[in-house]
Amino acid sequence: MVTDTPRNDSLLRALRREPVDRTPVWLMRQAGRYLPEYRATRARAGSFLTMAKTPELACEVTLQPLARFDLDAAILFSDILTVPDAMGLGLYFVDGEGPKFERPIRSAADVERLAVPDMDRELRYVMDAVRLIRRELAGRVPLIGFSGSPWTLACYMIEGGGSDNFSRIKAMMLDQPALLHRLLSIVTDAVIAYLSAQRAAGAQALQVFDTWGGVLAPHHYREFSLPYLTRIARDLLRGDGDDRTPLILFGKGNAPYLEELADSGADAIGVDWLVSLEEARRRTDGRVAVQGNLDPAVLYGSPAAICNEVRRTLASYAAGGDGTHTGLVFNLGHGLSPDMNPEHVQALVEAVHEGSRRSW
Amino acid sequence: MVTDTPRNDSLLRALRREPVDRTPVWLMRQAGRYLPEYRATRARAGSFLTMAKTPELACEVTLQPLARFDLDAAILFSDILTVPDAMGLGLYFVDGEGPKFERPIRSAADVERLAVPDMDRELRYVMDAVRLIRRELAGRVPLIGFSGSPWTLACYMIEGGGSDNFSRIKAMMLDQPALLHRLLSIVTDAVIAYLSAQRAAGAQALQVFDTWGGVLAPHHYREFSLPYLTRIARDLLRGDGDDRTPLILFGKGNAPYLEELADSGADAIGVDWLVSLEEARRRTDGRVAVQGNLDPAVLYGSPAAICNEVRRTLASYAAGGDGTHTGLVFNLGHGLSPDMNPEHVQALVEAVHEGSRRSW
Repeated sequence: MVTDTPRNDSLLRALRREPVDRTPVWLMRQAGRYLPEYRATRARAGSFLTMAKTPELACEVTLQPLARFDLDAAILFSDILTVPDAMGLGLYFVDGEGPKFERPIRSAADVERLAVPDMDRELRYVMDAVRLIRRELAGRVPLIGFSGSPWTLACYMIEGGGSDNFSRIKAMMLDQPALLHRLLSIVTDAVIAYLSAQRAAGAQALQVFDTWGGVLAPHHYREFSLPYLTRIARDLLRGDGDDRTPLILFGKGNAPYLEELADSGADAIGVDWLVSLEEARRRTDGRVAVQGNLDPAVLYGSPAAICNEVRRTLASYAAGGDGTHTGLVFNLGHGLSPDMNPEHVQALVEAVHEGSRRSW
Repeated sequence: MVTDTPRNDSLLRALRREPVDRTPVWLMRQAGRYLPEYRATRARAGSFLTMAKTPELACEVTLQPLARFDLDAAILFSDILTVPDAMGLGLYFVDGEGPKFERPIRSAADVERLAVPDMDRELRYVMDAVRLIRRELAGRVPLIGFSGSPWTLACYMIEGGGSDNFSRIKAMMLDQPALLHRLLSIVTDAVIAYLSAQRAAGAQALQVFDTWGGVLAPHHYREFSLPYLTRIARDLLRGDGDDRTPLILFGKGNAPYLEELADSGADAIGVDWLVSLEEARRRTDGRVAVQGNLDPAVLYGSPAAICNEVRRTLASYAAGGDGTHTGLVFNLGHGLSPDMNPEHVQALVEAVHEGSRRSW
């Protein structure tokens, strides 16, 4: 386990709500198809899954955005569905259709067959990638590990892929709630083991992506997503003080639950662009760091417009607290898309550093 | 203009926040592909657009769900894109891809060419359908007319169809905000003329669908969607007292703005399932009626689960105010889908009436 503080530790300091020289910024899906060098690696690999499952290739694409942009963190290149894949569901990708499972969960017997995968065997390729990336980063910036949330993984596991209406998981939620809780409980154990293994392999911060929690009515979110996020935050042993490996809970559509998420024990809450950072900071009241939250579509605007929106986002966060940017990790409210312009990403990163440095 | 009170006037009473014997219920997309009789009419018509543009066919499908279910309102069968179509954009449908425009708005010159269509010429088929439906309804239940919101129509007009990321309209919003405001202003004039003409033809309540307002960051929603909704509510002359034609503002993702929407001058706010009715009622504080908000996916559950969720929704509304259901119009949080079971819709409608009658 490597625990050295990275030379640029602004992400870790911001997650601990300590002052920083300039607000750290990283971007969800920063290693992705919008970069020509990523597309080249992917073409060489032959498939997305080969790339994700080959530590050398995963390391290569993880580092690509850092070679271009002054980002303050690397995030492991992987897929949120590695865990259910390791549970035997058979992950595959169809071009233009997204991820699918060969053996989705459709019955109580399917749920009973599920078990927490062995991190050193079925998911060893992820831990090898984490170790390799840490070595290649050589202490430049921290490495973020991640997992999908239990609810979000369950969506894919039960629907068998992406979904517009989540009809299968919602039918199970309504008609077989105990069965769904059983599934979520096993998946939660797997997520905790997975994040713990990534931390042991060298991940210096951890993020849980609750991509689909926001499709739930409040009483369903509070029963089927929130408690499992809270259990992860509670059970994931993360050390103390400066040694603590911080945990970020990101959720699309999590704005109604910010107070509850801030009480979960997580170090930071990642929010989408549908809530102002002023409100997010005020409602979490300095108990956690806040990560977010530029609308990714802002990158379709001109560099001047991007700078303007970045400044507005920074000012919004400052207005929600003591006027400083302490405790802010700048990010998008969701991931980068393949049709985005790398020069605009460059403008964004520079605007964050420029705009947050100026205010100190 | 027909102004007689319908025999079942519970919708109109609920929208005026007057007591009713049982909570009125209608369902977005209640005339739709989930009904075999609808699919038969559509097959006979040959295309969705022929059906929408032929008053006799539009009337036929509007009445179909009323023949099956004890619904408390009819809603005009039409499409939200009739207005931009009448503005010359050339609406067409590709199976499995949704609506598209032959001539989307891509330049300032395109915007300058836009004008409010003549309601008696380009949109006469809609008014003829309204008149015919009113005649066929024969005073049984009220007829709801509708329009898309300016922002939502602008999304389709600029993107040229549906969109995952709204990259074109958001680029215009960021880089040419004055041009987008010009477009929204013309569209708002058209929406007001369109709703006024539907009212004159016999629509007894009106709904604006702001389907895509919820993709905007709060500062953008408050600049590019909310003010136009407010102008509609203000400028649409709707009479006084019992003669007033009530206006419902429905918006997906409008939960952050309930207070502002309640101040718009509209009679009711329609909400999706991402906010509890308890909260929606409390935050609008009896100033407007509230419409909603069952997660449509609840219809994938069993009839017993549907009844349970309906009762929970009714109780939530009651808990947000004086313990009664006064001022509630029951609906889904979004529309019905083609793969839903009509028997489950039946169970829902009965559960609303049963559950709301019981509590009086």
